[in-house]
Amino acid sequence: MDASTSPHDDASEVLLPQRSSLAEQLLSQRSIHLSRSSPNNTSQVAIIGSNLCPIESLDFELIENDLFNQNWRSRGKAHKYRYVVLKWTFCLLIGVLVAAVGFFNNLAVENITGFKFLSLSKLMEAERYWTAFGVFAGSNLLLLLFASAITSFISPAAGGSGIPEVKAYLNGVDAPNIFTLKTLFVKILGNITAVSSSLHVGKAGPMVHIGACIASIFGQGGSQKYHLTCDWLRYFKNDRDRRDLVTIGASAGIAAGFRAPVGGVLLAVESLSSWWRSALLWRSFFATAVVAVVLRVLIGVCDSGQCGLFGKGGLIMYDVTNDTTTYQLADLPIVILLGIIGGVLGSLYNFLMLKVLRIYGYINEKSHAHKLLLTSAVSILISCFLYWLPWIASCRPCPSTSNGDCLSTNRFRQFQCPKNYYNDLASLFLNTHDNAIRNLYSTGTNDFYHPLSLLLFFVSSYIFGILSYGVVAPFGLFVPIILTGATYGRFVAILLGSYTELDHGLVAILGSASFLGGTMRMTVSVCVIIIELTNNLLLLPLVMLVLLVSKTVADSFNGNIYDMILQLKGLPYLEGHAEPYMRQLTVSDVLSGPLHSFNGVEKVGNIVHTLRSTRHHAFPVIDEPPFSPSPVLYGLILRSHLLVVLKKKAFVPTNSLSGHEKASKIFVASDFDKRGSGKHDTIDDVNITPEEMEMFVDLHPFTNTSPYTVVETMSLAKALTLFREVGLRHMLVVPKSSDRAPVVGILTRHDFLPEHILGLHPFLVRSHWKRLRWNRSTVTKYFRSFITWLACSG
Amino acid sequence: MDASTSPHDDASEVLLPQRSSLAEQLLSQRSIHLSRSSPNNTSQVAIIGSNLCPIESLDFELIENDLFNQNWRSRGKAHKYRYVVLKWTFCLLIGVLVAAVGFFNNLAVENITGFKFLSLSKLMEAERYWTAFGVFAGSNLLLLLFASAITSFISPAAGGSGIPEVKAYLNGVDAPNIFTLKTLFVKILGNITAVSSSLHVGKAGPMVHIGACIASIFGQGGSQKYHLTCDWLRYFKNDRDRRDLVTIGASAGIAAGFRAPVGGVLLAVESLSSWWRSALLWRSFFATAVVAVVLRVLIGVCDSGQCGLFGKGGLIMYDVTNDTTTYQLADLPIVILLGIIGGVLGSLYNFLMLKVLRIYGYINEKSHAHKLLLTSAVSILISCFLYWLPWIASCRPCPSTSNGDCLSTNRFRQFQCPKNYYNDLASLFLNTHDNAIRNLYSTGTNDFYHPLSLLLFFVSSYIFGILSYGVVAPFGLFVPIILTGATYGRFVAILLGSYTELDHGLVAILGSASFLGGTMRMTVSVCVIIIELTNNLLLLPLVMLVLLVSKTVADSFNGNIYDMILQLKGLPYLEGHAEPYMRQLTVSDVLSGPLHSFNGVEKVGNIVHTLRSTRHHAFPVIDEPPFSPSPVLYGLILRSHLLVVLKKKAFVPTNSLSGHEKASKIFVASDFDKRGSGKHDTIDDVNITPEEMEMFVDLHPFTNTSPYTVVETMSLAKALTLFREVGLRHMLVVPKSSDRAPVVGILTRHDFLPEHILGLHPFLVRSHWKRLRWNRSTVTKYFRSFITWLACSG
Repeated sequence: MDASTSPHDDASEVLLPQRSSLAEQLLSQRSIHLSRSSPNNTSQVAIIGSNLCPIESLDFELIENDLFNQNWRSRGKAHKYRYVVLKWTFCLLIGVLVAAVGFFNNLAVENITGFKFLSLSKLMEAERYWTAFGVFAGSNLLLLLFASAITSFISPAAGGSGIPEVKAYLNGVDAPNIFTLKTLFVKILGNITAVSSSLHVGKAGPMVHIGACIASIFGQGGSQKYHLTCDWLRYFKNDRDRRDLVTIGASAGIAAGFRAPVGGVLLAVESLSSWWRSALLWRSFFATAVVAVVLRVLIGVCDSGQCGLFGKGGLIMYDVTNDTTTYQLADLPIVILLGIIGGVLGSLYNFLMLKVLRIYGYINEKSHAHKLLLTSAVSILISCFLYWLPWIASCRPCPSTSNGDCLSTNRFRQFQCPKNYYNDLASLFLNTHDNAIRNLYSTGTNDFYHPLSLLLFFVSSYIFGILSYGVVAPFGLFVPIILTGATYGRFVAILLGSYTELDHGLVAILGSASFLGGTMRMTVSVCVIIIELTNNLLLLPLVMLVLLVSKTVADSFNGNIYDMILQLKGLPYLEGHAEPYMRQLTVSDVLSGPLHSFNGVEKVGNIVHTLRSTRHHAFPVIDEPPFSPSPVLYGLILRSHLLVVLKKKAFVPTNSLSGHEKASKIFVASDFDKRGSGKHDTIDDVNITPEEMEMFVDLHPFTNTSPYTVVETMSLAKALTLFREVGLRHMLVVPKSSDRAPVVGILTRHDFLPEHILGLHPFLVRSHWKRLRWNRSTVTKYFRSFITWLACSG
Repeated sequence: MDASTSPHDDASEVLLPQRSSLAEQLLSQRSIHLSRSSPNNTSQVAIIGSNLCPIESLDFELIENDLFNQNWRSRGKAHKYRYVVLKWTFCLLIGVLVAAVGFFNNLAVENITGFKFLSLSKLMEAERYWTAFGVFAGSNLLLLLFASAITSFISPAAGGSGIPEVKAYLNGVDAPNIFTLKTLFVKILGNITAVSSSLHVGKAGPMVHIGACIASIFGQGGSQKYHLTCDWLRYFKNDRDRRDLVTIGASAGIAAGFRAPVGGVLLAVESLSSWWRSALLWRSFFATAVVAVVLRVLIGVCDSGQCGLFGKGGLIMYDVTNDTTTYQLADLPIVILLGIIGGVLGSLYNFLMLKVLRIYGYINEKSHAHKLLLTSAVSILISCFLYWLPWIASCRPCPSTSNGDCLSTNRFRQFQCPKNYYNDLASLFLNTHDNAIRNLYSTGTNDFYHPLSLLLFFVSSYIFGILSYGVVAPFGLFVPIILTGATYGRFVAILLGSYTELDHGLVAILGSASFLGGTMRMTVSVCVIIIELTNNLLLLPLVMLVLLVSKTVADSFNGNIYDMILQLKGLPYLEGHAEPYMRQLTVSDVLSGPLHSFNGVEKVGNIVHTLRSTRHHAFPVIDEPPFSPSPVLYGLILRSHLLVVLKKKAFVPTNSLSGHEKASKIFVASDFDKRGSGKHDTIDDVNITPEEMEMFVDLHPFTNTSPYTVVETMSLAKALTLFREVGLRHMLVVPKSSDRAPVVGILTRHDFLPEHILGLHPFLVRSHWKRLRWNRSTVTKYFRSFITWLACSG
């Protein structure tokens, strides 16, 4: 039954005398090779949302067993039309629902925060400053505690932005509960309350998760619990179609979050999805177009003033279209400077964010009480700063352009100032993030803000952003990053003074772009989102340039924020490109055993024992005499399919072929449909009597006869290319010479993870075949010398 | 030496009793199976530009032989930095050069046509109408003949838009001369003159080819002929890096053609490239950003009036940004109507275009004289219509908004009219295409055009577009399609009259979008290009919707224009998705023999004989006793590498391993670099003496030890997925049972082509496992009944 893994058989060594130095090093690591019969011990759990969960790989391969083939052949044209119609209907529904949720989110946040700030203003006018602070801090605390509590107690998977989880799902990592109805509701409610609590968090990121949730629920194939099943929905009960739906949902989510339909599609292409097809581009484009149309209609409804404090507006969030954009070649250095600043600040932001997330992680791990305590502490701290910092700022008279009444626009804050005066710091601090961004982006307002106010706001929003994200509640990163970037953009513009004639509002937009580039490292999508947010196409070349510079600078320090969070969460994300050292290894160098395989006709007892004693999700099926002249690989059978076979007890008393006819009588293809995320049977759900244990089962009809295979001598880099490009879960390794067992091992996602490979071959860690990047020590060194230089020159 | 292909060996038949009906059908086609030892006879030539050329597949796989591995290991950090720096420098240079060429193209076209129309106006004012016609038609004829002559005689590969060729190249089909310096010059010059000749052709499509050419020349690794070689450039001497460069060049080309940097990248993603990576997105984005900046600078230079008749302008080609866009929900039916019209007209356009291209093809095949005669006929015909049709239109007074002097803008034509009057038809016909589009897109001009003028212009530009494209000269399709679409958009708007308050200019934009969607079937990229052309982001939802409708409608009739042209040209384009019937076949069902393989140590005479007698580009290398206990697949060796080995005569007198050390003394890795397109040795370039013929050569160091393999029983659909996703040129098929030769065949691109498969298994043609599409007979039927209905009701 077991085929042992012998990585370097003699034959191949004779043939490979030239695999010189590396092979020697490998062989000298005998101790590692001896431990290779131990299973791959990379982690099978990860932090999903805010809790540790078991994770599983998704299977994007078509399982072409005989039952599937028969079923597939029997599908007529009607089935195919039905499938196509359903796909497009789902896209339409996803678009409508995501747009509605996005609009409702906005409406709720605007109304809650609007009401909060209205009460605050009234109390300030009455000069009841301490009461005002109490109301402000109290309501913030309550809102955030509510968000945190529902996340902790009802659905921990809803915590955070959800983008890392969606990204991992689209890469092939599944976790229970990330896409359930419960998660969806907690995400929506929690996000509204958390964003309304004046924490430095955004509402765009969670829209990705919300979109993905809605889409995934469509792909569940109905619900047996609520008797909502339908034969039509069966077509989507596989990971491939679900992946497509989730991709579309995520695009729609971003499109609704930023009202940026093209940007949504691009973000999904550029940084969320790991596989992409032209057909998918078209469908997600349709979904985001629907989002745009629905949002426009809903916003039109609100223009009549029936939406409370939501206010009027168009599809463009931060419209600067009325302003003529002029820039000269002489402005290029400024753009490059902004890019460099954005890159440095962005990579530092990522670095600090990771540190803070680690510390928060330790606290959050302990208990629910710790989580809520941390939440309260952060909320109170930030509320204090938000309320008391603006007192430092001096009052400024309303600009003449607004006819002395600058406060009616609801974007400037009077705070403690006399009538017709405004407090610039309060206008940024005590405002919705959207209004603060509008303030900073607005053109023709070069002298509205004192440089020190901007500096203070920049420093605090930089720190608040880092401090806020680790709190257990559903919220995102985009908006705080856009806001912080806009602030230093304006600050830089003021510092440059008369050197440039660029409008400060435009420099603020470039600042946002550079900071987004420095933290998230996306290019095309962020560029299009910025353009769709501001509706000023003439900015395009500048935004492109600033993004490129900031990404380049930041990439030389560390990775993008979402990848760092992915790693921190322990999600086994599989990169598309091979690490350079993988080219020096062969597939057999990373194989870990032992391998369990089944005969074509196998004893029930053996199957049950193997399923009980291992956690493998697939097993090779090997035909041995008398069914074939010599041992031959027949295919690969999945654990889930074996469980179905065991449950229906398709057994025969003797070791003989029962064949396809019998199987097709007992089973229908839908028995083998992949069930929804987190729902699967275990071997303990199957009751087998001792008599049945001695019976046999013919596995041929249930075996995938076309698994992808590689030869054991294939280079690991090329095997990874196959594994990743085709989207596999299991890849069979066959021996080079024919005199051995027909399969020598199975490769899974975990076998390609750098921590596994570098654990097996530790000398590779020190090798020079690594990616070009400044490592942490270099960065620390440079930072230290920079600080020393500052101290000396200061 | 030969391993015969036996598709259904007995062992597998015992194991597959269930592969019932289809297997029987397959087996009943014995006659086909008997013919399977004949080679795959799909065509190895295709029409490139305007001439028949031999084609070859590209190899995107890394050839991991020992020499490569050794060389790769020896590369230090300095090499990698150099490679990265070079890659980015190339992007920068591509951006600058493509922008410069794009700008120069525009400048030249505007000046030549401007001068032409200026002379025309002067002669018209002097009432010398026949002279005017003579000058007009004569200059058109001369310009077009020049373009046609240089294309025919100097570089036929430069003919047409070049987009199909670039698309095929990025799919892995190489043709000689498509990316040479000569082609580049002919393309630039020919395009300028052809567009200036008032033919109904565009200048955006050729920019893709020009961009790809420029990029590919960077990837040639210098030129030995002109002694421009450099060790640094070696890194790009492989198909992978060249593919990346060409993709970037094509993006830059579109970006320069439409001044649409984001649209350029998206078009490359959506419809040009077959493989895409995030890193590539970033680099092409950089190149297009450079294009935008350079274009802006160059346009800025022209604003001072030093560019002749080029005129002033911004980065936006057809700016409608100043106009407030208002639309209601009630306008949605109009958008959908436009979409449907666009879809029907677009698919009909494709259909007619194909017919005309076929007819032109017959004529062009005959001789150069025939080509030039056809060119002249088309040019004279179109010139006649362009000049004489506007006489039908009545003169219209200049609108009051232009203060009575509508002709000073250079966009309206006085033609035969009195002063302060304009001829609306002449303003469209006798104008540059850019100006005509600007006329149609301009808002607030609802009553500038007589409906009949629009209808006449629409019909003629629809027909002219179809008639023009097949002429042998370098030009594109985008601009005529945009223009034709805009015309019927405006016409529809006039017909709707007071039903809608949509501005006619905006409806014209939607018309362009719908016609682009109906012919080219792109969605996201066309949408972004339209937005970047017009700078009106508020149109986005409408443009998205109209594109979706028109693409859906058109897709139900036929394929997109470029794919149809690809097929017409005979380019073996490999689709990314498997056809449904491929799931019913196994790999062995399409294998065609005979297979030629080599021993690990092979006699020189055998190699020479095999290379002479076959046209295969790769051969399996099999180790047989005494070098291994049983026959074992060692790897795959390329014909080009064999030729290098033969040329350097690395022979040994006896049948023994000479090993890696000897090889590394004689060869350096650069010997095996892939040379530029079209440059390769043949076996006839190698001189081997009869004594040498009896010697041996050790093929091990030159063999790719990690070729991708599939088992013969794998389903064809899954094999295609692997072949296409990984980007292979050769895929080895290994037997299922171990008692046979270690390789049973090699699959190449041609084995996956539908014409090959359906040729082998003709019954599949009638099967119901086909894609959902109306076939030609259905369409013809519907068209006939529609025409009958028209005739009856008329």
